[in-house]
Amino acid sequence: MAEEERIDDIGFSGFRLIQRLGDFCYGVDAVLLADFSKVKKGGRVCDLGTGTGIVPLVVKHKTEAAEIWGVELQKKSFDLAVRNMELNGVSDCIHILHGDVKEAPAFLGEGTFDTVVSNPPYMARGGGLVNGGTEKMIARHETSAGLEDFIKAAVTLLRDRGSFYLVHRPFRLADIIVCCRKYQLEPKEMRLVAPKAAAAPNIVLLHCVKRGKPELAVLPPLAVYQEDGRYTEEILRIYERQSDTE
Amino acid sequence: MAEEERIDDIGFSGFRLIQRLGDFCYGVDAVLLADFSKVKKGGRVCDLGTGTGIVPLVVKHKTEAAEIWGVELQKKSFDLAVRNMELNGVSDCIHILHGDVKEAPAFLGEGTFDTVVSNPPYMARGGGLVNGGTEKMIARHETSAGLEDFIKAAVTLLRDRGSFYLVHRPFRLADIIVCCRKYQLEPKEMRLVAPKAAAAPNIVLLHCVKRGKPELAVLPPLAVYQEDGRYTEEILRIYERQSDTE
Repeated sequence: MAEEERIDDIGFSGFRLIQRLGDFCYGVDAVLLADFSKVKKGGRVCDLGTGTGIVPLVVKHKTEAAEIWGVELQKKSFDLAVRNMELNGVSDCIHILHGDVKEAPAFLGEGTFDTVVSNPPYMARGGGLVNGGTEKMIARHETSAGLEDFIKAAVTLLRDRGSFYLVHRPFRLADIIVCCRKYQLEPKEMRLVAPKAAAAPNIVLLHCVKRGKPELAVLPPLAVYQEDGRYTEEILRIYERQSDTE
Repeated sequence: MAEEERIDDIGFSGFRLIQRLGDFCYGVDAVLLADFSKVKKGGRVCDLGTGTGIVPLVVKHKTEAAEIWGVELQKKSFDLAVRNMELNGVSDCIHILHGDVKEAPAFLGEGTFDTVVSNPPYMARGGGLVNGGTEKMIARHETSAGLEDFIKAAVTLLRDRGSFYLVHRPFRLADIIVCCRKYQLEPKEMRLVAPKAAAAPNIVLLHCVKRGKPELAVLPPLAVYQEDGRYTEEILRIYERQSDTE
């Protein structure tokens, strides 16, 4: 392991993850996305912008997917993702593709996926600082591919009635819904996640269906912490940890 | 007062409201919409689909609007709205127009309103039962004017940077956001309302700004009831009632 790397036990199937110190490290978003994503037994899944591969690992643990692809443009993250699949002995099921999400359908086949998941960069082009060019910055900003590129790639990869699961920030919700509808990814379920029940949400989970019928179910909100600062029961369930009181 | 009518004290400025038994009677939606709507001092406000005039009455009570117009197509509701303004002595400030929302800009002037509010029919054309033709059914279904007609009328009535406040059902959220963006009513603030904090929301409040910059603030959720069944403090504040414990 290189000096500037760290290795974390991610708590699912005993999986471990190598990440680079100072680079973008996985957070609650990736785990919530993987838990929110329903994958049928034997399904083919693609994760657009997979980073170091956290979402494929958790999806592998939580579902009976037959084949999972992770697409990552940044060379250092891609290399780590490949090593992470080897480290966890899942290279036969999880494949990492080095490339731009815009090119993913050409490599992986149009209309061939049951499920596409994505935790894309949150900041719109021109929003916030976009110079410097670090891996961390590219992971957070729409520098190479924008929201529309992720959505377009998702709908192209999916079979008819296939599902797209997205984690994003609520402030982009209008952009997301307008763009999904534009590409016939109909928003069907939405869940807002907040630090506490009475707080403004800071994460949105969206499930769209390719050519689905218009009607959105807004699900009960998810709070990360209880009033007293302990994790909520649902977060403990998602992370597969025991309650403090049990 | 006709036999089939009832008169309710609505609890704001001592205002009372005549409604028809068996017809659509005002609910929490109208009060939440009026409370959510910010109107500048001396502002001109229009309520599209005003029914018997509940929203203009509560807006009159809660703001310093100079002039409020209510537009209602259904003759019986329109007649009641006119009588309700007379009953409450506010006919000099609140004016009721009998007509289709689609024709409102031609009557009231394009680009002349600071604020437009609306509690439109929730059910899409073709959704649910649409025969029978009662006033109640028209108030709930998009029979004469659809969501797009309300949004188009709102943007046409508003001055540049004017505000549109809408109350609706979450299951239509994708339709609403897509349509608002289409007509340059940019969604700026959204608040979801649920019976209880942990429940799925059943009401959505949306604030759009004509030609506003894209960025949506999803506000903390509003719960109507506490876990023990009492009203929450915020609902008591909105209804201007004292807490049970005070």
